[in-house]
Amino acid sequence: MFVLREVAIVGVGCSKFGVRKAVNLARLSFEAVKKAFEDSGITGKDVEFLAVGSAGAGGLYEEALPAVVIAEYCGMTGAGLTRCEAACASGSAAFFTAYMAVANGLTDLAVAIGIEKMTELDTSVVMELLGRAGYYLWEFHGFGPTFPAYYALYASAHMEKFGTTEEDLALVAVKNHKYGALNPLAHFQNKISVDDVLASPVIAWPLKLYDCCPISDGAAAVVLASKEKMRELKVDTPVWVGGVGFSSGTANLSQREDYVGLKASVLASKRAYRMANITPENVDVACVHDCFTIAEIMAYEDLGFCGKGEGAKLIREGQTEIGGKIAVNVDGGLKAKGHPIGATGCAMIYELVKQLREDVEKRERQAPIKNYVALAHNVGGVGHYCYVTILKR
Amino acid sequence: MFVLREVAIVGVGCSKFGVRKAVNLARLSFEAVKKAFEDSGITGKDVEFLAVGSAGAGGLYEEALPAVVIAEYCGMTGAGLTRCEAACASGSAAFFTAYMAVANGLTDLAVAIGIEKMTELDTSVVMELLGRAGYYLWEFHGFGPTFPAYYALYASAHMEKFGTTEEDLALVAVKNHKYGALNPLAHFQNKISVDDVLASPVIAWPLKLYDCCPISDGAAAVVLASKEKMRELKVDTPVWVGGVGFSSGTANLSQREDYVGLKASVLASKRAYRMANITPENVDVACVHDCFTIAEIMAYEDLGFCGKGEGAKLIREGQTEIGGKIAVNVDGGLKAKGHPIGATGCAMIYELVKQLREDVEKRERQAPIKNYVALAHNVGGVGHYCYVTILKR
Repeated sequence: MFVLREVAIVGVGCSKFGVRKAVNLARLSFEAVKKAFEDSGITGKDVEFLAVGSAGAGGLYEEALPAVVIAEYCGMTGAGLTRCEAACASGSAAFFTAYMAVANGLTDLAVAIGIEKMTELDTSVVMELLGRAGYYLWEFHGFGPTFPAYYALYASAHMEKFGTTEEDLALVAVKNHKYGALNPLAHFQNKISVDDVLASPVIAWPLKLYDCCPISDGAAAVVLASKEKMRELKVDTPVWVGGVGFSSGTANLSQREDYVGLKASVLASKRAYRMANITPENVDVACVHDCFTIAEIMAYEDLGFCGKGEGAKLIREGQTEIGGKIAVNVDGGLKAKGHPIGATGCAMIYELVKQLREDVEKRERQAPIKNYVALAHNVGGVGHYCYVTILKR
Repeated sequence: MFVLREVAIVGVGCSKFGVRKAVNLARLSFEAVKKAFEDSGITGKDVEFLAVGSAGAGGLYEEALPAVVIAEYCGMTGAGLTRCEAACASGSAAFFTAYMAVANGLTDLAVAIGIEKMTELDTSVVMELLGRAGYYLWEFHGFGPTFPAYYALYASAHMEKFGTTEEDLALVAVKNHKYGALNPLAHFQNKISVDDVLASPVIAWPLKLYDCCPISDGAAAVVLASKEKMRELKVDTPVWVGGVGFSSGTANLSQREDYVGLKASVLASKRAYRMANITPENVDVACVHDCFTIAEIMAYEDLGFCGKGEGAKLIREGQTEIGGKIAVNVDGGLKAKGHPIGATGCAMIYELVKQLREDVEKRERQAPIKNYVALAHNVGGVGHYCYVTILKR
């Protein structure tokens, strides 16, 4: 039973993703917040609640407790504050929390910021933190798998069971680089070929370097408002939060039922579809969590864009490109836009709002909008956390 | 405008606070969760959303991303998950998030867990993390104040402006140790005298060792339910969430208007009183954030238990003991019960639910319940974050 108020997204902003060593945490956040404030016509003083998504604070950069620092720098002192962490789904956890604060009437205006700075430290430190996104005690400490190794387990099982090939995985990277090259905010601006992917160094077989998303810095911000506030702000094209879903998987991968999909994605998306009263067929455009190429193929299946085991067929047929059945990761995805882990969930919302407004800066990567429905799918760890958000215009 | 559903607290649990080196993060959480599940008659499978409050994950203990590990260990795999961090108010941020998930109908049953393990590492590491709870870049890194030094600034300003004395501060510690000695869960089980406090080593004048709360390990859990679910569970004495309030202060202390109170406490409590439709006079029993003795005196004033500058008078007259005007921190407070930072917010709710049920295990520390109203006040940093929760029976 849902007693929620309707919640509109009235402003979005996103920083350039990439290696951003010249800006600190607060300044990088402001790059996104400034755009979101201008987009919505508000100032920091109007904000009553702020949720900050960051997974790395405490390990990756100087401010261990970042929400208050970002709030002060962006002019939001006085707002209620929390930092949300759900591993690589931290940005979605922040969006979800800010959404709830508006939906239930505790405030008429809330902001979610996703932020991560990952390139300042040695890559080995970042690798260790990512490896800890599962169960440190039993699996990371016990056996030492890196984060790519966890997804490689899934990739090899998927290949074995469904005949998915290394070339199929490579096609995901090729597609996402193609769109990343059209997105000025993307970390990578270059197109790549299947041969480039196959020839890149093996990281954890079958995953090669170009099957993996990069380590990036970036921030994204979303302004959420009640219907009354949205009208007061005279917003032309509000985008509505149609549904949210959340779930989790076992901490130990050894406890999973299988290794060919993420149960948390299935459960979270079912919740979101039910709440939004739609089916997967209604979705025009989606951002799915492609931290590795196999993750995008599993997402197609887990989210119901195709049947189980048919993900590779979908990418082979070009059905997830613009002009296909459903446009997926046409901002470049985590693979090419980059994956500053806490930022990603909010960056997905940014992209989908632009898509639903039919306001993408380069027309070549504007998805055709028929049903005015978009979906964001953000995974933390290896299906340890999952949030699915459905937007409608 | 509030469109919330009513939310009941149907179960609470709290671990022993203290030095808990023999249990890891998940096991310590379970100590609280098990009691909360038994109290409410639910199992982990019933839980659809879990918010975990922890400030130190990533710095203080092995699991950098703890929510999924705790969820698995406590049988809640599949629930939506987020970790909330708001410095020393992280437990309240988790409670607030779980509350919202029920209040707006996204779920009928949610759990909040507060957890911290602080004693495993060298005290200097913990001190550094606490010092970073303000603005690392400008103040901690720039001038190196420890956390007691920040509160010492406020204590000396309060003494200068209102004539508060070192003896007044000591009285807070004496009161809270008196009640801690009656609370089997408290870190400290001993009574102390004003002379003990005054003779203890100076940490940051005017604060001495016994003006400071200890570094502790501990966990607390709260089960929240909709009215329908509460009836289904046949809960005898539900306690209702009457109001919540949140606010924040500047990250830089140099930007504060004064140093004799915490503006975030004033603003958060006003929001909570308004939502609950009560005044401070209605509150029977309160848990306030006494990380240092001066913090409790400022809380009396900021929450409206007395006028500004009258906090010392209130403690001198014994008005905040059982039998006085309002019973404050009769579980021992942070000062004597202990302050595992992420746990504290949920531990306050635990205590107040027991008080409102008139079910405190030792009758000597059961507050007289007249209006069936209780208040929890949880501060992060030095008024950087504040959450106020009002409970009603």
